[in-house]
Amino acid sequence: MSRIDARLAELGLTLPAPLRLPPGVTLPFPWVSVRGNRVLISGHGPVEPDGSLSEPRGKVGADVTPEQARDLAGKVALAILASLRDELGDLDRITGWVKILGMVNSAPGFNQQPEVINGFTDIILDVFGTEVGRHARSAVGLAELPFNISVEIEGEVEITA
Amino acid sequence: MSRIDARLAELGLTLPAPLRLPPGVTLPFPWVSVRGNRVLISGHGPVEPDGSLSEPRGKVGADVTPEQARDLAGKVALAILASLRDELGDLDRITGWVKILGMVNSAPGFNQQPEVINGFTDIILDVFGTEVGRHARSAVGLAELPFNISVEIEGEVEITA
Amino acid sequence: MSRIDARLAELGLTLPAPLRLPPGVTLPFPWVSVRGNRVLISGHGPVEPDGSLSEPRGKVGADVTPEQARDLAGKVALAILASLRDELGDLDRITGWVKILGMVNSAPGFNQQPEVINGFTDIILDVFGTEVGRHARSAVGLAELPFNISVEIEGEVEITA
Repeated sequence: MSRIDARLAELGLTLPAPLRLPPGVTLPFPWVSVRGNRVLISGHGPVEPDGSLSEPRGKVGADVTPEQARDLAGKVALAILASLRDELGDLDRITGWVKILGMVNSAPGFNQQPEVINGFTDIILDVFGTEVGRHARSAVGLAELPFNISVEIEGEVEITA
Repeated sequence: MSRIDARLAELGLTLPAPLRLPPGVTLPFPWVSVRGNRVLISGHGPVEPDGSLSEPRGKVGADVTPEQARDLAGKVALAILASLRDELGDLDRITGWVKILGMVNSAPGFNQQPEVINGFTDIILDVFGTEVGRHARSAVGLAELPFNISVEIEGEVEITA
Repeated sequence: MSRIDARLAELGLTLPAPLRLPPGVTLPFPWVSVRGNRVLISGHGPVEPDGSLSEPRGKVGADVTPEQARDLAGKVALAILASLRDELGDLDRITGWVKILGMVNSAPGFNQQPEVINGFTDIILDVFGTEVGRHARSAVGLAELPFNISVEIEGEVEITA
């Protein structure tokens, strides 16, 4: 068993199935793209274990509480790990988290984006440890997100080429 | 004739002239910046063949329909290709599309950003093929964009150094 | 004295102290992260010389004038330079500015994001010169930013590894 898979099991974390798209919808882009030792991660939303979009959706600070949004950001972390494992075969290949951009669907006046995105960062640090897991990041408020999801995160990791 | 130029001609696509700025305005940044084999693309908006900003402008979902926005995203693709050709000399030097960030000037409640940005992605895939053209991406809703344009896209491609 | 430090002194620019966080708050991410010869810069806001968040805050075009926002973008430049010097030891190690993303907390109808972010770009070009300092960039309007700051900027620079 890979070291990261063992760590996920130890933390009681299960990676979700791939995002379930409505019938007939196909995406013209990959969730993860490998370029040498760089791995680019497309924007992911939160999904449930079966791959359906997580609820609640909507604007954080109005339709969704900050605490719910923090949980949703954690689900984005698991969705991204699922995409990475699907593409890389083994999450142990990841040698460093480079950068993430955390985008929060924000109601007017909601300014706690960093606390929301901590739901993502905390899981990455728990799973990978601080040396591999630490990443530069921004956490900002978007006007709208696809499918009215509350949190979307994109980023980049490094692998051994 | 370069292979990509031939493909553009085959598809009936013509790259626009550089963006026409109002008199006296100069931009303190390059449209495209080469760093080794990485090419960083500044945020581009949609332009007409003569380099003027495309219409309509405004918020997608209110002032601009999703279909119009999809066309505008296609014009952004051509504007970016024009900037890349201007800097690189030959678009055949591009060995891979790495990542793009598609930003849609979104009216409240407009959540179809991915369909808008498909107008960009479809052209890149048509012109470069799926192997070179496929890219990680995010498609998200911005509150405002410069000059009230409806779509802005930034990204990165790889070249042979 | 380093060449860049000398240039900062010549321009009368002083780098601020690190951002002062409210008591008990710790950030789970680094301001700057070095990966080989790449240096990723987390989203920074404007700070005063003592490390406190700059005023005014709020939406540019409503609470904050474009001219004030331009000054705030200049303060973001200095905050980023402070974080880079803290991490790298010597700003002379920077061999190129790669890319920045300028995010402006924008009131409805405010579309002069590029002029705001010029407050950042102008300082970088003044301090590093056009060859090292020139960078690809986007300047866009966000719905909300953390702590209701008016400008946030993230980016990447290159160093000799």
